[in-house]
Amino acid sequence: MKGKFVVIEGLEGAGKTTARNTIVMVLNEQGINDIVFTREPGGTPLAEKLRDLFKRGTDGELPTIKAEVLMLYAARVQLVETVIKPALARGAWVIGDRHDLSSQAYQGGGRGVDPQLMASLRDTVLGDFRPDLTLYLDLPPKVGLQRARARGELDRIEQEALPFFERTRERYLQLATQDSTIVTVDAAQSLEQVTSAIRQVVSHWLQQQEEA
Amino acid sequence: MKGKFVVIEGLEGAGKTTARNTIVMVLNEQGINDIVFTREPGGTPLAEKLRDLFKRGTDGELPTIKAEVLMLYAARVQLVETVIKPALARGAWVIGDRHDLSSQAYQGGGRGVDPQLMASLRDTVLGDFRPDLTLYLDLPPKVGLQRARARGELDRIEQEALPFFERTRERYLQLATQDSTIVTVDAAQSLEQVTSAIRQVVSHWLQQQEEA
Repeated sequence: MKGKFVVIEGLEGAGKTTARNTIVMVLNEQGINDIVFTREPGGTPLAEKLRDLFKRGTDGELPTIKAEVLMLYAARVQLVETVIKPALARGAWVIGDRHDLSSQAYQGGGRGVDPQLMASLRDTVLGDFRPDLTLYLDLPPKVGLQRARARGELDRIEQEALPFFERTRERYLQLATQDSTIVTVDAAQSLEQVTSAIRQVVSHWLQQQEEA
Repeated sequence: MKGKFVVIEGLEGAGKTTARNTIVMVLNEQGINDIVFTREPGGTPLAEKLRDLFKRGTDGELPTIKAEVLMLYAARVQLVETVIKPALARGAWVIGDRHDLSSQAYQGGGRGVDPQLMASLRDTVLGDFRPDLTLYLDLPPKVGLQRARARGELDRIEQEALPFFERTRERYLQLATQDSTIVTVDAAQSLEQVTSAIRQVVSHWLQQQEEA
């Protein structure tokens, strides 16, 4: 089977790393071993610099929300054009820790950037390039934040108040219902249940791809 | 008179600095002294970092043309929102060394990025924010490059071959004919003639503004 682009999405603490490991296991069981991993924002030296710059700013200056969104898209298009598309072109699989849906949810939902502007930017910048499958790990923000805090992983974005994450989750859920390539997984279940759900989703989807 | 946003555009070596000084003299003669100067890309610490990053890249990685365009717009919107708009709001004048027209001409013309994509990005990012007056200093690229070389000012963009600058100039001229707020000045004339032409254009325009 030709390589595919699979993306894991969700709030902090939703279990994206565990999900990735599960997906890799399922792929390996199907004899798929040529897998490239990406994380966004970032994933190339230039994209990581942009990530750092939009998260921390420079000389005490933080980006405005529009500048932040444009830096995000600069990092994304750099990663897509220099890493993801070349990997897919040579037949490899790509598993992404976040991709465009994060921007639609965090900036378009959480930060309240006009969703039409977000969608227009995505279409202008990425054309019709989309993940083949997105696993959205859904979790009440309170639970996710507790998990992330326990790991000591809180940056500017993550320090935002709870309502921000509620809005982000709402937008995630809304977008997931509008797009058949996005599958929502209940990440509030036990680790075993989540892992089992992901296995089922990915296995089922792989079978569909083979039949297609 | 309420503060206005005046922009100077043109290829390297067209005489933008001299033009700026001339404009300042004309404004001062009219009793206008509260003037903010900007240069693009750049003009704030964050925007300057982005300028440096898109010109030089990092760790041997240069941005793709789309990433470059997005970084340009991130820097621009940061400058517009944190410097230009606040200055105009308090009644100051702003004189810009380059603004959006440079991107339309260099990236849309010289580098061959789809002009529709460039215009769509501009509209998405800047809305209807536009300079009140743009002075485009028109010059055959050969002459401009000779002047810039004599000053030892050549970076990645400026090292591009002559055809790049020919395409950029063509796009500048094309856009200038479509927009009544852009005035083309023949910058191949003698310094005295160029300065005199700029004085006339700006004085005439100021008179129109006062009558409006």
